[in-house]
Amino acid sequence: MNIRLAERMSQVKPSAIRELLMLGADPSIISFGGGYPDASLFPLDRLESVFRTAIAENGSDTLQYTVSSGSPKLREQVAARMTRGGVDCDAENVLILQGAQQGLDLVAKMLVDKGDVIITENPTFLGALIAFNPCEPRYATVRMDEDGMDMDDLERTLARNPGAKLLYTVPDFQNPTGVTLSLERRKRLVELANKFDFVILEDTPYREIRYQGEPLPPIKSFDTQGRVIYLGSFSKILAPSLRLGWAVASEEIIQQLGLLKLAADTQCSTLNMAAVSLFLDTYDIDEHIAALRQTYRRKKDLMLDTIRRAFPQDVAFTEPSGGLFTWLTFPEGFDTTRFMAEHALPEARVAYVPGATFFPLQQEANHARLSYSTQTDEAIVKGITALGRLLTARRSA
Amino acid sequence: MNIRLAERMSQVKPSAIRELLMLGADPSIISFGGGYPDASLFPLDRLESVFRTAIAENGSDTLQYTVSSGSPKLREQVAARMTRGGVDCDAENVLILQGAQQGLDLVAKMLVDKGDVIITENPTFLGALIAFNPCEPRYATVRMDEDGMDMDDLERTLARNPGAKLLYTVPDFQNPTGVTLSLERRKRLVELANKFDFVILEDTPYREIRYQGEPLPPIKSFDTQGRVIYLGSFSKILAPSLRLGWAVASEEIIQQLGLLKLAADTQCSTLNMAAVSLFLDTYDIDEHIAALRQTYRRKKDLMLDTIRRAFPQDVAFTEPSGGLFTWLTFPEGFDTTRFMAEHALPEARVAYVPGATFFPLQQEANHARLSYSTQTDEAIVKGITALGRLLTARRSA
Repeated sequence: MNIRLAERMSQVKPSAIRELLMLGADPSIISFGGGYPDASLFPLDRLESVFRTAIAENGSDTLQYTVSSGSPKLREQVAARMTRGGVDCDAENVLILQGAQQGLDLVAKMLVDKGDVIITENPTFLGALIAFNPCEPRYATVRMDEDGMDMDDLERTLARNPGAKLLYTVPDFQNPTGVTLSLERRKRLVELANKFDFVILEDTPYREIRYQGEPLPPIKSFDTQGRVIYLGSFSKILAPSLRLGWAVASEEIIQQLGLLKLAADTQCSTLNMAAVSLFLDTYDIDEHIAALRQTYRRKKDLMLDTIRRAFPQDVAFTEPSGGLFTWLTFPEGFDTTRFMAEHALPEARVAYVPGATFFPLQQEANHARLSYSTQTDEAIVKGITALGRLLTARRSA
Repeated sequence: MNIRLAERMSQVKPSAIRELLMLGADPSIISFGGGYPDASLFPLDRLESVFRTAIAENGSDTLQYTVSSGSPKLREQVAARMTRGGVDCDAENVLILQGAQQGLDLVAKMLVDKGDVIITENPTFLGALIAFNPCEPRYATVRMDEDGMDMDDLERTLARNPGAKLLYTVPDFQNPTGVTLSLERRKRLVELANKFDFVILEDTPYREIRYQGEPLPPIKSFDTQGRVIYLGSFSKILAPSLRLGWAVASEEIIQQLGLLKLAADTQCSTLNMAAVSLFLDTYDIDEHIAALRQTYRRKKDLMLDTIRRAFPQDVAFTEPSGGLFTWLTFPEGFDTTRFMAEHALPEARVAYVPGATFFPLQQEANHARLSYSTQTDEAIVKGITALGRLLTARRSA
């Protein structure tokens, strides 16, 4: 039969990342593609212990249904942690999510009618576009530099799209560029949101993975009108498999998102919420995060040092203060998708994410996202050196 | 600020069930409301063991991201189980879901444009309406009797709505009525779907909780054109907190649903999928299900026997061959919502789900859904007897 699909499905297509995650599964390829955390850093013993306790001591509750907004205890713990981090809030301001990705889906559903404008950084997180697309938005983009979104360019974008409802940003160690939005621009962004009446969706999966400098206040901390929705995640600081993230927003917004959460999947896993709740009670997660930072910093330094040594001078790269990614910019005319298919994969056995896919409108062909999080030190040196050798050979050819 | 909500939010409202689940949390109330399984039946030791093994022996995989369609091993196990149950399929026909509820959300997204017609049983599962509503469908309903949907009435409904895209049914021990669709009607339903070109969404959360008689073949087993989507769930046969269900459909449909799954929440919990996979490998789930059936059957018999003894003769009730619910029909003019607020709750300290909420179009006030799954034998007798006393007193007043 021919399925009569809904119109929105014309916006729902297989993504480049999906194909790449499949390639990354080939063990003979060194993949800098996926944004996975380093599995050797998962706190296995402690997670085993909290799952055992959650089932053995309270299984008739932790294996049962619970309320759709998430376990009350975990909502309180998240609210307390957020408050310590500069976002004053209560449990009623918190919704537990099936990973922050679910927040992207629910926020778009809540706000975006077909044709409504969503403003994003240029480039932006591909997973966000994938989540937003079923709502059939139009996109408008904002130029970035080493301090994140350019606020003058945002003003121009808003002048062209005065009815824009939603702005999406990853302000800390952005995916894909690794760039962080400056303090001054965070304040300016909230002023513009107040002036032009749009909602800011602040997505912070890498926020706590900072290697240097002091954390900047979340955009949400400057919100006086209840128009910033903050998304956090346990995926990078604990384990992605738990599928737990959270939204912090005004009670009004949390109630709307909670209704959509109930409709979408009833609730998150009671057991996983109970286990994370126990983890936060029993162990010092900040100590765990400090250890993650050390490892990722070492890997980041190793990748960037190897790039400096092995790559031609005309390849630029960002120097992130945290997170999992660096963003390469090749000379104009260089096509990273083609180079990967024709050279990097077959000759160097190395994968990355070609940058084109991260641009909502005009795809730029000469960028690539490299993650240093999942490969061993040896593989980082080997893979980057092999890539550099190919690039140098190509230049002198 | 006033949030400018998307139009679809006019269809997204707090549900009666949500309020009731909150009431059920008051320990002084005997609630026959929620469709929860009996927590005393959760296989705690075995679940503790498989979670321990999944983390201790393979934590760097089971705590990491995996593919969005679900763990390949679990997809294979589900396909093998479905094939044994009469639905011949492979792993490629299976998508692992965050509970069957997510299947309702994704199928509606895949098929339903604003104003498209969804056909449902009358009454139908409230959670399905909640999941479908954000797609802004129109509903058309089909009369039910003790053999499920009336096929003559379905033909009339189709004549009035020839473009209907989707029909939703819970054919086994339906929620809320407890009624099962007969064999003859299952075949006729597929013939009508072929003739009128609609998709059947077959939702089977209670299918394996059968007390008497032989299982009827799934509607999906009569599907020759790839137009039936089968939804299954581990919630009632293992534990709802795991949030694991599955869809079985044509590869084409599974691919579309898989893209929507990726957009909605990336994937299900790798850990929970690994634990269930180990459970299926290590233990005999059919033996576990046989024990569940015995308990639920006893509770069903106890509730119905008590109703027969304690209720006035003019209250009718269904006699389910499985599942968790019986459906009461009071005389015309009786309002179960009002009776619950004014009498059942304050005087008998008993809760149920007033039936009006299960009707997509014309709400009938004189029904109630009672679940016998979560209360102890003592509480079933006490609660039903108290309700019966109130009803009898009201008649003689």
